[in-house]
Amino acid sequence: MDIREYLPIWDKLNEDQQNRIRRAITLHRVKKGTVIHNGNMDCTGLLLIQAGQLRAYLLSEEGREITLYRLFERDLCLLSASCMIRSIQFEVTVAAEKDTEFWLIPTEIYQSVQEESAPAAGYINELMASRFSEVMWLIEQIMWKSLDKRVAAFLLEEAAIEGTAALHITHETIANHLGTHREVITRMLRYFQNEGLVKLARGVVEILDEAGLERLQR
Amino acid sequence: MDIREYLPIWDKLNEDQQNRIRRAITLHRVKKGTVIHNGNMDCTGLLLIQAGQLRAYLLSEEGREITLYRLFERDLCLLSASCMIRSIQFEVTVAAEKDTEFWLIPTEIYQSVQEESAPAAGYINELMASRFSEVMWLIEQIMWKSLDKRVAAFLLEEAAIEGTAALHITHETIANHLGTHREVITRMLRYFQNEGLVKLARGVVEILDEAGLERLQR
Repeated sequence: MDIREYLPIWDKLNEDQQNRIRRAITLHRVKKGTVIHNGNMDCTGLLLIQAGQLRAYLLSEEGREITLYRLFERDLCLLSASCMIRSIQFEVTVAAEKDTEFWLIPTEIYQSVQEESAPAAGYINELMASRFSEVMWLIEQIMWKSLDKRVAAFLLEEAAIEGTAALHITHETIANHLGTHREVITRMLRYFQNEGLVKLARGVVEILDEAGLERLQR
Repeated sequence: MDIREYLPIWDKLNEDQQNRIRRAITLHRVKKGTVIHNGNMDCTGLLLIQAGQLRAYLLSEEGREITLYRLFERDLCLLSASCMIRSIQFEVTVAAEKDTEFWLIPTEIYQSVQEESAPAAGYINELMASRFSEVMWLIEQIMWKSLDKRVAAFLLEEAAIEGTAALHITHETIANHLGTHREVITRMLRYFQNEGLVKLARGVVEILDEAGLERLQR
C-alpha cells in the first residue's frame, strides 16, 4: 500500500511537497471502540483510512450522542485536523467502529503544503463540502423526517455496511446514532416487529422485510 | 467602495487575477424579500454584501423552512456558488431580509482564480468552515436545546441585529426561522408574556425583560 494511491492530489504536488508528506506520515492501528479524536484533545491530524471504519459524532454535555457521518477505507478524516482551519468552531468526536488502520498526516505538514499548493487546498475544500453535505442531509432528516423513517433508514444502512440482515447492535447504540433515547428505540423496534419488518433477539435486530423498511423510509 | 477592501485575500492575488475579478464583477440592488438564489436555479455566483442582510435557509418539500445562517455587510455568500464545489450536494435558498446591495463574482471567474491561487482556495476553505460551524451549532440547538431556549435566543439575536427591543416580526416568520409551526410559536410567546418576558401586540414582539430571556436561553 502506498500513500500516493490514497491521496488523489498526489500527482499535483511537487517532489518537495511529496517528500515532506512521506517523511511525516505514520501508520496506526486501533481497536474497535477507541476514541481517536475528541474536541478537547490536541489537534490530531488528518487520518487517511486504510482499513476499518470510523464514526464522527456530536456529544452533548449530558452525554447524548448523534452520528454525523461514517468514514470507510480511502476516506480522509478532516475534522480531526480541525485546528488547521481557523474557522471551524465546533467539536466532534471520532471513534473506531471497527478495528482500523490509518495513516496520520500531521496537521502542520499538510498545512504547510496547502499554503503553497492550490490543488492541496482545493482538495480540503472538496472534503469539507462532502462532510458539510452529510451534515445538511442530517438536518433535513431531523427536521422533516419522523423517527420511524429514520430508524428504517438506519437499519437498511447498517445491513448494507455489514452485508447481513442480522445486525448485532443494541438499542442503546441505535439511539446514540440517531440522537434519541434507548426507550424510544425499543418502542419503535417493537412496533416494527409487530408489523413483521424485523425480528428482535438479545443484542440482535434481524431484518425480515427489507422492501417493507424501504417503503417506510421513503 | 472598492472590491479590494471587501476581499481579504486581494493583496495575495497577482495583477492578472485581480483584473479578471475586477472586469467580471457586477453590482446589484435587490428589495427586501427577493429570493436571490435557490437550489434549483443556475449557479448564481459568489455574493459579496456591501449593505443589507441575507438569509440562507432550507426549504422542505412541504414548504417548511429553517434558517441556517444570516449574512451581513462584508460577508461573502458561498453557497450561491455551490456549483463551484462539486461535493456540495444540498440545496439552500438565499433571500434578502432587508434591501441589499451586493457584488456578484461570477462562479467561473473565481473558480479559475482559485485553481491557480492557494490563498484564494484557502479563503473558500475558511468561509465554508464558518458556514459549516454555524450549521453544526444549529444541529446542537435542535438536538439538545428545548424550544423555549431557542425562541429566547432568537428574540435576543433579532433585538441585537435590529438594535431595538420592539421587534416587528410575525409568529409565522419566527416559526420559519426555527423550523417549527406558527401555533407552537404563538403558544410559546404567550407563555413568555405571562412570565413578563415580552409584550405582544399585532405584528410586534416587544422584549420587556432581556436579562430574563438571557437566563432562559442558557
